Amino acid sequence: MRFGCVVEYDGAAFAGWQRQPARRSVQAVLEEAAASVLGADVRFVGAGRTDAGVHALGQVAHFDAAWSRGAEELRRAMNAGLDRDVAVVSLVPAPAGFHARNSARARVYRYHVLCQPTRSPLFRRTTYHVAADLDLDAMVSAGDRLVGRHDFGAFGRPMWADGSSVRRLDRLVVWREGPRILFEFEADAFLRHQVRRMVGLLLDVGRGRWLPAVVDAILAREPLAPVPRRVPAQGLVLVAVRYPPAMELAAGPCAVPRREGEPG
Amino acid sequence: MRFGCVVEYDGAAFAGWQRQPARRSVQAVLEEAAASVLGADVRFVGAGRTDAGVHALGQVAHFDAAWSRGAEELRRAMNAGLDRDVAVVSLVPAPAGFHARNSARARVYRYHVLCQPTRSPLFRRTTYHVAADLDLDAMVSAGDRLVGRHDFGAFGRPMWADGSSVRRLDRLVVWREGPRILFEFEADAFLRHQVRRMVGLLLDVGRGRWLPAVVDAILAREPLAPVPRRVPAQGLVLVAVRYPPAMELAAGPCAVPRREGEPG
Repeated sequence: MRFGCVVEYDGAAFAGWQRQPARRSVQAVLEEAAASVLGADVRFVGAGRTDAGVHALGQVAHFDAAWSRGAEELRRAMNAGLDRDVAVVSLVPAPAGFHARNSARARVYRYHVLCQPTRSPLFRRTTYHVAADLDLDAMVSAGDRLVGRHDFGAFGRPMWADGSSVRRLDRLVVWREGPRILFEFEADAFLRHQVRRMVGLLLDVGRGRWLPAVVDAILAREPLAPVPRRVPAQGLVLVAVRYPPAMELAAGPCAVPRREGEPG
Repeated sequence: MRFGCVVEYDGAAFAGWQRQPARRSVQAVLEEAAASVLGADVRFVGAGRTDAGVHALGQVAHFDAAWSRGAEELRRAMNAGLDRDVAVVSLVPAPAGFHARNSARARVYRYHVLCQPTRSPLFRRTTYHVAADLDLDAMVSAGDRLVGRHDFGAFGRPMWADGSSVRRLDRLVVWREGPRILFEFEADAFLRHQVRRMVGLLLDVGRGRWLPAVVDAILAREPLAPVPRRVPAQGLVLVAVRYPPAMELAAGPCAVPRREGEPG
């Protein structure tokens, strides 16, 4: 039978979600933990292929396994075998036809910037430090221009080899919480590095390096438009994956997503 | 001349504030960084002697040094030489007669509990995970009984060998933020492990193991009163140290304390 699960991880010590030869990936670590409980090989399919260093509060995955003792017992047994930097937050029998990646309607990512003169030892693992003052209004204005259905090819390449770099960015919110500036993005899907390059561009707008209208020039692939810079992975978190109502994973012991607060 | 500074650190890789032979302490790391900039030995005196694993957002320290090129330049030079898990947030010439420990009027500590069924990979470094449901009202009621001037000898031994275990707890606030429960304590000073044992007791009250009135029995040192358990260090943060108005460190590039948000 097919199970769906929500997974949280600290991305620092992972080479990303995707299994890769001789590197520690979230997928491989989960597959090993599941295989050890189930006594059989298991393959996990994740909704979002997060890069090395990127965190997740609400990654969603599915796998097929023969198991009759209840999803919660499987979840607990897996968590007991997992390292401290990854945990299965909920695990339930998947709805009929559920596929973690193909059924997903939207992905929600959040990026955390710490905007203050001095780097922060306590928040360094989950934020990107920017010493300069940032113009929030300018970033909001630039962000508004990114929302919608566009060819985001200037921001990255397709994560899945479907050939198209058109994506639909449904929501981009920028807000301040004390010394932090948070960016939240929701789209049907993202190109590889797209979120980090969008944040890099917005920060350059916030610094006054570009005017918000630079977004239009970049989306139009104008020859003289700047190439958006990519910000570091540790500020990025995959917050949630959204599914159509019929495909929602029934809430396990924790709701999904169970936390609106931010890491770090 | 004397300088006063505010220091932030991630306590995980430190054996605490206090210099100890052959162990990595915050004090020793700061003294080495300062000596390397100043070209002379320096001794740091901290306001609170935090234990191994305890974090700080607003530790305050002073040191005496000959330096004529401005406090901000000294701060930047020190930060450039410090490891990523510690930073000097502000550094200013100290007010006349300032002593980081002896001038301090109060210390503010915060303890972070993550109350949900599953441990959290992303918050594991800065919170203590409790899987059980907690009765917030009962913890508030027990906390109220701790406030005031009491002999806290049941909660720890004097941090400085002054012989007395009487302390004045001015403020104890317990509140919920999503899945987290936060405890904030302000007192003239704390005994060693006092905060962590107070939290341990409050959590046992929250779990329904004891009634709030147990606090009175413990403070009265009744023979059958339970011994408060100590919760782990990683949930604890020294948030701020308070001084009389004449002794406040002038705000450097960052206000002190500059952040109300919580770590992790």
